[in-house]
Parts: sequence; structure tokens; C-alpha cells
Amino acid sequence: MGDFAIGVDLGGTNLRAAAVSREGTMLRKIAGATPVSAGRDAVIADIVRSIQALRDELSGERLAGVGVGIPGYILMEKGIVSGAPNLPGFENYPVRDEIEKGIGARVILENDANAAALGEHWLGEKQRIGGQQTGTGQGVQDMVMLTLGTGIGGGIILGGRVLRGHLGMAGEIGHITVVPNGYPCGCGNNGCAEKYASATAVSAMAKLLNLGHDLSAEQVYRLALDGNERAQAIFESVGVALGTVLADLINIFDAPLYLLGGGLTGAWELFEPVMIRELSRRSFTYRNHPPRIERAKLGSDAGLYGAAYLPLQMP
Amino acid sequence: MGDFAIGVDLGGTNLRAAAVSREGTMLRKIAGATPVSAGRDAVIADIVRSIQALRDELSGERLAGVGVGIPGYILMEKGIVSGAPNLPGFENYPVRDEIEKGIGARVILENDANAAALGEHWLGEKQRIGGQQTGTGQGVQDMVMLTLGTGIGGGIILGGRVLRGHLGMAGEIGHITVVPNGYPCGCGNNGCAEKYASATAVSAMAKLLNLGHDLSAEQVYRLALDGNERAQAIFESVGVALGTVLADLINIFDAPLYLLGGGLTGAWELFEPVMIRELSRRSFTYRNHPPRIERAKLGSDAGLYGAAYLPLQMP
Repeated sequence: MGDFAIGVDLGGTNLRAAAVSREGTMLRKIAGATPVSAGRDAVIADIVRSIQALRDELSGERLAGVGVGIPGYILMEKGIVSGAPNLPGFENYPVRDEIEKGIGARVILENDANAAALGEHWLGEKQRIGGQQTGTGQGVQDMVMLTLGTGIGGGIILGGRVLRGHLGMAGEIGHITVVPNGYPCGCGNNGCAEKYASATAVSAMAKLLNLGHDLSAEQVYRLALDGNERAQAIFESVGVALGTVLADLINIFDAPLYLLGGGLTGAWELFEPVMIRELSRRSFTYRNHPPRIERAKLGSDAGLYGAAYLPLQMP
Repeated sequence: MGDFAIGVDLGGTNLRAAAVSREGTMLRKIAGATPVSAGRDAVIADIVRSIQALRDELSGERLAGVGVGIPGYILMEKGIVSGAPNLPGFENYPVRDEIEKGIGARVILENDANAAALGEHWLGEKQRIGGQQTGTGQGVQDMVMLTLGTGIGGGIILGGRVLRGHLGMAGEIGHITVVPNGYPCGCGNNGCAEKYASATAVSAMAKLLNLGHDLSAEQVYRLALDGNERAQAIFESVGVALGTVLADLINIFDAPLYLLGGGLTGAWELFEPVMIRELSRRSFTYRNHPPRIERAKLGSDAGLYGAAYLPLQMP
């Protein structure tokens, strides 16, 4: 039992680390670019340095352990990551053991979308029992979170714990089929949810609809706000895709809470009405006993909180 | 801790009950028609009589409790069933308490598809540890079962326990959308899995394809075996629908085992190749690390075993 834990969010672009108290308060945060081009060992060294810096600043407190969120599949027992194309050299490399060696403390790896879901869940719990952190989880034991970014990340929390699956590949909600013969996806499937409801999908649809070749999701959002009907249609199709996926998830999990996070939720008011309409049409459970469908609250810090929670959650 | 438990499978047509030992051996079984037309109270009286008859036959053994599988949503705390159109008068009626009153022993209700999944899971466990029962679960902690009958029933086992959901409505796998603008379903959605891959769906498709107006799934199966191409096409479309659903489930759960049960699995060899082809195309997890996709083994007894397991599983 330590007084605080360190959460690391290792992305292909940014490397962030934070010290978080057992009560869920963020004590210190470090953020920088991930030195991917300098090679894997430089990335590991940077992670170790960040952790050490946080430890040094909190030298009077006891460290419970370190959690690291990584965009890939985590093999928990081996402490390795698989399928992380944005982190060259990490495939089958003993990430956990190497970081542990560098810092001399316990390290737990987790998929980044799972860590974000766990973070939102944890601090919702805190809010319910009267803590001061804000969050949307509010004491539920089960929830499903979708992070709408470059793709769609999924995180499933059941009984307060991440559903990992036997290969660490559970929660791939972005690859649920929403249009059986739809856009081809990098995963080999056609019509995956993330081809219709991610920031990347919004840009791609803007190109298809002749709105522009290199528009960001935010630029498409602004066009929609300015009354552009094609841009508005894109966000409506985001709503249809999300409503379809949420109906599936409700039929499968019957959880009390579904959270949507990630950059694309900035366009919430443009897709939410269509999403709820589609969901109502497709899910009898939703029509009869609507669960909460809400925006995540912690933004990009959710993954840091969730990563830090991993060692705190251990018995 | 008792020596045996009683499992009841209450269907709209058949009412069956069995005494099952703690080791998973079926000791006695009683089967008869459900007296639905005589009214709810007659059905409850029949359940109580069946349980008493089994108890009397095993009067030297201690009864651990009674589990009852019912086609509907179970509100566990209240002990009531909801959404069971084939059992008139049962909506919001205190089924559990009434049966308990009649027999003076603990009763646990469960959705029938969940009970079947639990039965298959339990006896697979037995097989792994050297018991004599047969089953396919084989010691896995997580599995998903689809029962292809009049509709598609779903049962999800995680960590050895049924995933119920907060309203008892989890596992409604038959209502996952496989064709977004497909056949309308009684649930209000279009294109639900059970409109494409149940026995009812096979009959309906036979009518649409001018094969005949009142063909059973088994008759369509025989036509397909005799070389009828339309009948064969129907089972291929069953395979496509199941492959699509299984890909979604694998992306969500990453479980090591998926079981298919119910009458329609008698046509396994007609839909399985297309199902696996579709699944391989749609799921990168399946292509890289294929989980087991197998036929359930216990037939209609799965629900009886699973219902009996409910009180045995309690601490």
C-alpha cells in the first residue's frame, strides 16, 4: 500500500506521466514528445526518466507502483505489447520488465483505451462517495467507453475491472461492423464503426463529399456550424453509426452507463440527436429503460488517471 | 451445502425438471407440457409438484436449492420475470417467492439462454478436471453461447459467472444488427441477427425464395442436402449472419470459446464453412489467434444443468 502511484500515457506522439494520490488527486504531471525516431531504447529511457523525476519530487511519499497505458494489445502475464504500429521496435519486447529494471518498482501495462475507461470509472466512483474529483462514472460497477479519435478505442469495465479478454484484445469496439459492405478498414473488415465515427472518418467523408481534401474533423465541424449541409450530413452519419454500435452494446452488456470521449465529442451537439434517435429505434432496452449515454469528463487525462489506478487497484 | 440441486426449465411449451448432483450427474428427470392455458397458478403448482416429486425420490440426499430457467428478463433481487410473452400472467408476478413458498427451499431464477450457457460451461469444467460428464466448456473462464432456435438466445459467461446486466437484459445477442436496413424485427430494429440465423428465419427465407409456405428449418435443410440451390443459399446466408455476429463478439470479448447450440445447429455442415469464411474476413483477432467456435454438446439438457448449477454455485 503506497500513498501515490504513477500513471504513464505512452502514445506514438506524446509521452506523459503523472503522480496521482490514492484519493485520485493529480499531484504532478510531466508531458513531452515521444522520441520515437530516436529508437525504442530512447523511449524506454525517457519513460524511466519521467517516472524518476516524479518520484524525486514526491520523495516523502511511498510509491504504490506504476501503470503504463500503451496503444496496443497487452499480454499481461508476459508484460509485452503487441500490435502497436506507432511504437516501432516494441513488438514482443519486454517493456514491463525493462521499465521495472530501470526504476526498481512494480509496473503494470494496460491498453490505452482501457486505461482511459478505468480512469473515468475510478473518478466517477470518487465523486459518488464524496471526493472532490469530477468524473462521470458515478459509482456504477459496469460501463463501456468509446474514445472517438484517430480510430475508435473501446474500454469495457465490468465489476469495476477492465475486461481484457484472454489475449488482451477485448474491447475492440471500433471494429464492430456497422455497414456490412461499407468502407474497407485496415483490419481487413468492411464497414467498421471507426470508418464512420472517428475524426479520421469525418475527414475522409469530407473528401468524398467534395468538401475539401485535407480538412480536419474540427474544420468540418466549423463548416457544419456555419450551415454547410454536407458537413452536417457527415455528423449525422456519425450519429447513425454510433447509435447502431451503442444499440449492439446495450443488447450485449445492459450496462447502466456508456461514455463517449475523444476529440470528436467536441461535435457532440451535431451528432447526439441522430445518435439517440438511431439508438431508440434499434434498442428495445434503450426505449424501455434508457441507460445513461454521456460525454467523458476527464479528457486526455483519463488515461493517466486510469494508468495510475492500476497499481492502486491491486490487492 | 447440499448433495444435489434441482434445475427447472420453464418454457412456453414444455416444463422440465431434473435433480443434478453436485458433481454434475443427472439423477432424475421429469418432463411434461406447460399448462399455460390453465393459467399462471396452475403452472406454478406444476413446478412445485415437479420439484416435490424429485425431492421425494431423493429423500436421503440434501437439497442445495432450486434454479429455474425462464424465457424472459430476470430481476434477480425481486425474483420476478419481465418480457416473457409465452408465459401469460407472469409479468411482475413474484415467481421466485411463490415457488419458495410452495417448496420451502431456496429458489434462484435465471434467463433460459443464460442457464443453457452456464450448463455448457459447468460441464466443460467438469470434463477438464476429470469428471465423467461431457461438455465443451473445458475449463475456460469466459465463453459466449448462442442458441439458434425460434429466435437467437445469448448467454455470456465471464469469470465463470453469467453476465446479467443491471436490468437482467444482457446477452441479447439475437438483436445485434447484422443488416442495418434488413428485415424488421419484433424488437423494433431492422436486420437483427435472429432474422437471419434462427430456425424461424430459415422458414421465412424459404417462403421469400418460393421454396414453400410452411417449411420447417429441418425441411429446408433436407432440400439443401438434396441439392436445392435456394435452400443451400439460405444456409449460406445463415453462415454470413453468424460470421458477422461472431466477429463482433470476438472484437468485444476476446473469449477463448464461442458455442452454438439449438436446433438449427443440426445444419452445421451447411452453414459452418461460410460462417468461418465470413468471420475470418471480418475479424483480425480470428485470423491471428482463432478462438474455438464449436457446437454445444448438451442439447436441451443444457438449461436443466445450468439451472441446477445456480444454487450449487452460490457460496
